[in-house]
Amino acid sequence: MNDTIALLQAHRSIRKYKPDEVPEEQLLEIIRSAQCAPTSSNMQAYSVIAVTDPDKKRELARLAGDQPYIEQCPVFLVWCADLHRLKYACAQVEEVTVPATTEIFIVATVDTALAAQNAAVAAESLGLGTVYIGGIRNNPREVSELLGLPDLVYPVFGMCLGYPDEVPTKRPRLPTRTVLHRNRYSADSFEDGVAEYNETLRRYMLTRAGSHKDSNWSKEMAARLRFSGRLHMKSFLSDRGFRLE
Amino acid sequence: MNDTIALLQAHRSIRKYKPDEVPEEQLLEIIRSAQCAPTSSNMQAYSVIAVTDPDKKRELARLAGDQPYIEQCPVFLVWCADLHRLKYACAQVEEVTVPATTEIFIVATVDTALAAQNAAVAAESLGLGTVYIGGIRNNPREVSELLGLPDLVYPVFGMCLGYPDEVPTKRPRLPTRTVLHRNRYSADSFEDGVAEYNETLRRYMLTRAGSHKDSNWSKEMAARLRFSGRLHMKSFLSDRGFRLE
Repeated sequence: MNDTIALLQAHRSIRKYKPDEVPEEQLLEIIRSAQCAPTSSNMQAYSVIAVTDPDKKRELARLAGDQPYIEQCPVFLVWCADLHRLKYACAQVEEVTVPATTEIFIVATVDTALAAQNAAVAAESLGLGTVYIGGIRNNPREVSELLGLPDLVYPVFGMCLGYPDEVPTKRPRLPTRTVLHRNRYSADSFEDGVAEYNETLRRYMLTRAGSHKDSNWSKEMAARLRFSGRLHMKSFLSDRGFRLE
Repeated sequence: MNDTIALLQAHRSIRKYKPDEVPEEQLLEIIRSAQCAPTSSNMQAYSVIAVTDPDKKRELARLAGDQPYIEQCPVFLVWCADLHRLKYACAQVEEVTVPATTEIFIVATVDTALAAQNAAVAAESLGLGTVYIGGIRNNPREVSELLGLPDLVYPVFGMCLGYPDEVPTKRPRLPTRTVLHRNRYSADSFEDGVAEYNETLRRYMLTRAGSHKDSNWSKEMAARLRFSGRLHMKSFLSDRGFRLE
């Protein structure tokens, strides 16, 4: 165990922020840390939009399903997979058609996620808090228009950034043996691992402030998967040049 | 600046490893750190296969395009997007059809990447080195068979893990102003930002040991995108239950 591992393992999503600004030098240090994340073939296929404009944050909070912390946090980061800049770079030597493949969609999405997670870790090391916002995909067309995203760019997720004004309890995770497999995928640990986690999460949800819900992981996940959300993503992405061929 | 940010910004991919084993307690600490990464709606939609079996590592090195460090490193992690365990968990309360949408594909892929990046950071904090291996998608069917991956699981990338036996130079990244946008996507910085980076990378490639290549970012990216690779990903994923609807 060391300080960095302690920091990683102490992560909590923050949904309540102090009004304090994030100093510009801290924001730059966070983004520089993001840029040091691994990137496939050095493509650096992502961009990040730092939204501080109150009107834009308010609109983004609405578009992401009325999540008030998007408006409340001083900086809302929108992490985008970006092949547009790559196309521009290529055009300096030759016009290249960016392949509209599933493969390059994976590359750009993973590049974005690795950079964002480095940013989240850097932010937490500075005493800041974050929460990822998948709700940015609720209305990706409107978000793209609001932020002026060109073709070949899509918003993967948002991230609130600011000084925490709460200390949430830490949500327990699956037993490690149920996530880590040895030399071969094995479902052997699922029976007791999932049962154990159901009980852990049931107790967590019963005691967590503001929850007191008698549920467990299986019930929560079944409810989550019963409705397929964001069915627009395929056609949205296709329209933006990610045809997933 | 603090130790964690210094660690993030000192990242280098390692392609040469000492034969020393990774102690089991360190591996567990790394995976526990991975598990503390954010996860969409607590789905934890990923699994990781730790491959230590020499024959399997050799075969994976071959399948990933003859990358010798996969065989050389003591532990090769295969990070998989995993909706299979989620389906199992739901089945404890009711049978759920996991939606084969583009949206849930993004969720599972991002969950995997966030966890993996936490693992990479934790590993580096322990003095270990890593390198992401996208080549695992060269032959995803064979990899899936070798590792016994069930439907609704796909290998997103591999990651070598072990003690570094080299100190590579740090590859420079794009100027931060070319990646970070304010309130709105802007290509204003592209012209001079990409030109500056082309020159930076040209100098880096000329002086890097074993390279001495007169190239730059634009040339490298144009060469990279001229050939669309891994065209099998769409049909592979579809066969495994990720139909990207």
